[in-house]
Amino acid sequence: MTRQPAAPVIDLNCDAGEGFGPYEAGADQHVIPCVTSVSIACGFHAGDPLAMERTVRLAREHGVAVGAHPGFPDRAGFGRRWLGISPREAEADVIYQVGALMGFCLAAGVRLQHVKPHGALYHQAAGDRELARAVVRAVKALDPALIIFAPAGSALHEEAERAGLRVAREAFADRGYDASGRLLPRGHPGALLAGEAAAAQAVRLALGGGADTLCLHSDTPGAAETARAVRDALLASGVSLRPPASFLITATRL
Amino acid sequence: MTRQPAAPVIDLNCDAGEGFGPYEAGADQHVIPCVTSVSIACGFHAGDPLAMERTVRLAREHGVAVGAHPGFPDRAGFGRRWLGISPREAEADVIYQVGALMGFCLAAGVRLQHVKPHGALYHQAAGDRELARAVVRAVKALDPALIIFAPAGSALHEEAERAGLRVAREAFADRGYDASGRLLPRGHPGALLAGEAAAAQAVRLALGGGADTLCLHSDTPGAAETARAVRDALLASGVSLRPPASFLITATRL
Amino acid sequence: MTRQPAAPVIDLNCDAGEGFGPYEAGADQHVIPCVTSVSIACGFHAGDPLAMERTVRLAREHGVAVGAHPGFPDRAGFGRRWLGISPREAEADVIYQVGALMGFCLAAGVRLQHVKPHGALYHQAAGDRELARAVVRAVKALDPALIIFAPAGSALHEEAERAGLRVAREAFADRGYDASGRLLPRGHPGALLAGEAAAAQAVRLALGGGADTLCLHSDTPGAAETARAVRDALLASGVSLRPPASFLITATRL
Amino acid sequence: MTRQPAAPVIDLNCDAGEGFGPYEAGADQHVIPCVTSVSIACGFHAGDPLAMERTVRLAREHGVAVGAHPGFPDRAGFGRRWLGISPREAEADVIYQVGALMGFCLAAGVRLQHVKPHGALYHQAAGDRELARAVVRAVKALDPALIIFAPAGSALHEEAERAGLRVAREAFADRGYDASGRLLPRGHPGALLAGEAAAAQAVRLALGGGADTLCLHSDTPGAAETARAVRDALLASGVSLRPPASFLITATRL
Repeated sequence: MTRQPAAPVIDLNCDAGEGFGPYEAGADQHVIPCVTSVSIACGFHAGDPLAMERTVRLAREHGVAVGAHPGFPDRAGFGRRWLGISPREAEADVIYQVGALMGFCLAAGVRLQHVKPHGALYHQAAGDRELARAVVRAVKALDPALIIFAPAGSALHEEAERAGLRVAREAFADRGYDASGRLLPRGHPGALLAGEAAAAQAVRLALGGGADTLCLHSDTPGAAETARAVRDALLASGVSLRPPASFLITATRL
Repeated sequence: MTRQPAAPVIDLNCDAGEGFGPYEAGADQHVIPCVTSVSIACGFHAGDPLAMERTVRLAREHGVAVGAHPGFPDRAGFGRRWLGISPREAEADVIYQVGALMGFCLAAGVRLQHVKPHGALYHQAAGDRELARAVVRAVKALDPALIIFAPAGSALHEEAERAGLRVAREAFADRGYDASGRLLPRGHPGALLAGEAAAAQAVRLALGGGADTLCLHSDTPGAAETARAVRDALLASGVSLRPPASFLITATRL
Repeated sequence: MTRQPAAPVIDLNCDAGEGFGPYEAGADQHVIPCVTSVSIACGFHAGDPLAMERTVRLAREHGVAVGAHPGFPDRAGFGRRWLGISPREAEADVIYQVGALMGFCLAAGVRLQHVKPHGALYHQAAGDRELARAVVRAVKALDPALIIFAPAGSALHEEAERAGLRVAREAFADRGYDASGRLLPRGHPGALLAGEAAAAQAVRLALGGGADTLCLHSDTPGAAETARAVRDALLASGVSLRPPASFLITATRL
Repeated sequence: MTRQPAAPVIDLNCDAGEGFGPYEAGADQHVIPCVTSVSIACGFHAGDPLAMERTVRLAREHGVAVGAHPGFPDRAGFGRRWLGISPREAEADVIYQVGALMGFCLAAGVRLQHVKPHGALYHQAAGDRELARAVVRAVKALDPALIIFAPAGSALHEEAERAGLRVAREAFADRGYDASGRLLPRGHPGALLAGEAAAAQAVRLALGGGADTLCLHSDTPGAAETARAVRDALLASGVSLRPPASFLITATRL
């Protein structure tokens, strides 16, 4: 992946549109104005057509780049439960979900920037090369200019680069990591960071150079405050915030 | 709607891809080779990502034009149950479903030709002007070159033309009509026509000039035989079979 | 319906367990302690197995009688959208949902007291005699001792009594009525009452004698405060609050 | 598990009611008359309220004992995909599904005999002690007289016995086993047995004494012929066919 000069520039992303029918989720209206990219749920693990339409428009209003956040077909488990899906099914599920979001982007006159798998799909594809390849095939077939958000060094990262797609290496501003750099599981003490703790971690990650995009969740308590704290701390540290389409110029092996 | 010289030309369409998960439905492999357009279920009333992918490829293989067949979110009722949906929800539901199918079209290198609402959505939009406008807005926002399949003279027909979209006036080869030209309800004697009866009705409709496309169902018993009988009878009567994108040149008020 | 001496006694009920998967809904923990009966969502319009288990236990803890709150299979529309369901399907859907809740009651050692259809199923069955009979058949087949909650004088009320079931005539403490006694549609000004307005209406309804049970919603803003206000006002007016199984002794034509 | 005198007696069971909405599945009408127990899908992996009602009545008509066949909430994968479900969710999901089927049994005047988990739930619970205990807790809470169908020696078998439930050790008449006694995975050559091959394996298993119930699938090609062949071969070998409630008299540690 070729990157423009090593200026301290990073993308700040949040998941959004994760309500469903009568249920609202997250503080989208407060978090989206703080970020530079948004990953919108596509109706399998969360989200629905009305929420997708609304969230695309909200992102456009705030000049935030739009991405798709496809997940497993598991609303009851919010797409966080491991699923024994075949690569072929996963490929078709990703095309379906990203295609649906592209529909709302077309209708809103917005170009889709990226795809970030959600929850168990993200974690399984990070470790399972077959599944990673399936996700990559789906994304590339839809639009080879799409960027994939993936953990640095994961199977998903490697397979996306191998296929010539741009990758935004993602780290989490508001999730704790253990000493070996792995995310602490949800429910574990320190798994969720908020406010100044998240801001400090964000600055560390942004200056460390190992990430192209930092994730904020919008469904944690105090998400809006955390988002502002993270944004302010990054700007105060001289980091510029820009969506990855603006600085991930080319993929290495296109 | 401007149409090319009054040659006896008509489109023959079938619904397809209406299975789900472990369930197969219809005789797609036998019916698709007989038609010129196919309307593919989009995962709300029937169909799923794998079926959509497979059916788009099958259509491409046979040179058949591809359309989307969005329906109500009602798998249990196969989208045939009346639903008190708001126009805003219907609009978003149509964008979602057609967008998802456009994803499979992109992946297969096929251009989407048309949108044909399914079941209760088709019948409600034929009669309800607000709902018709919602469907039309959704389709036009995705691609103003898309053709809408609608009953001649219905609210859906009129609203699509008013919005500048091309309309293929649809009649049913394999469904019985009453004296006043209304479809006999399913379950009513004579509601389903097969074999030579369907073929005779198809020729009558094609020569009558009131329809641009004739529908065949692929999930009725003997669907494959009926499809061949209809096709052969139309060709024997001197009717050419072509997808509507080739002969519905412009909309009247674009 | 035979009722014990005309003491000012009434049931206060709320809907509960209307979350789903990751989504919470309502202020169940605060409202349930204020009521005498609870109607628990059964997984079609809202609710899920874990929510049903939790809500049955919560009701048991507070000595509140448990009822089932079956709805249409329409999570996206929260069961509030009109559905063209056949009586046979509705009958089977009610058996399924109430049976599922009876499972949680069995597991918790609680006896199911009543069935209250939700949303569009409630309103359609209030007006459609075929559908009302289907609901009644389902309930009676499961347990003829179950009480049906229905609007006074509705088709559902009449058909339940005709079948020998006990009926609790329901009125709404926190929903506005028009001059002719019809519920104001949601979204209409005055459709939702809260606090003292709801309390005053509750007292009026309780003393009027035309209702056996008063409904409180737990998903409106300020639901907990309204619940306490209603309860306190009823008690202050000398009304006793008891579940209907305790005072609806026999059905007229059992 | 105490069993009556070592007469050659065995139960023959099939899965049934595995259609959904517009989709039919299996040859229930032809297979059910050949068996002594039936396991009915409960609406999560397959089946729906109308199918459950119809299948319970069909079983009653043929004097066949009724069981519940709960699965994972995964219609698209027919409950065959591994799911990272928590024991608490699985317990609630089983109570929900079995409760729903008990509703149809109540309505039909039939007593539920057994519970047989489906697909991935069956296989995961066979190997995962926590999940096995969750399934057992659910079944016991509903009715401690229910029998659990489980592979002999599995975690599910052991945990059910430990909880005092009766277990019918299940083997598969129409599925191939490898040399070490493990089921060959679907798709593997020899994984599905039909006709005389299934009949021969059934006789071997019945006389071997290691199984209390033999499973036939009703959704494999030629299922009806296989069912008759198996039944005839068993009877010709002097094996009596009876539902397990009639010969699994007591659990060891009730």
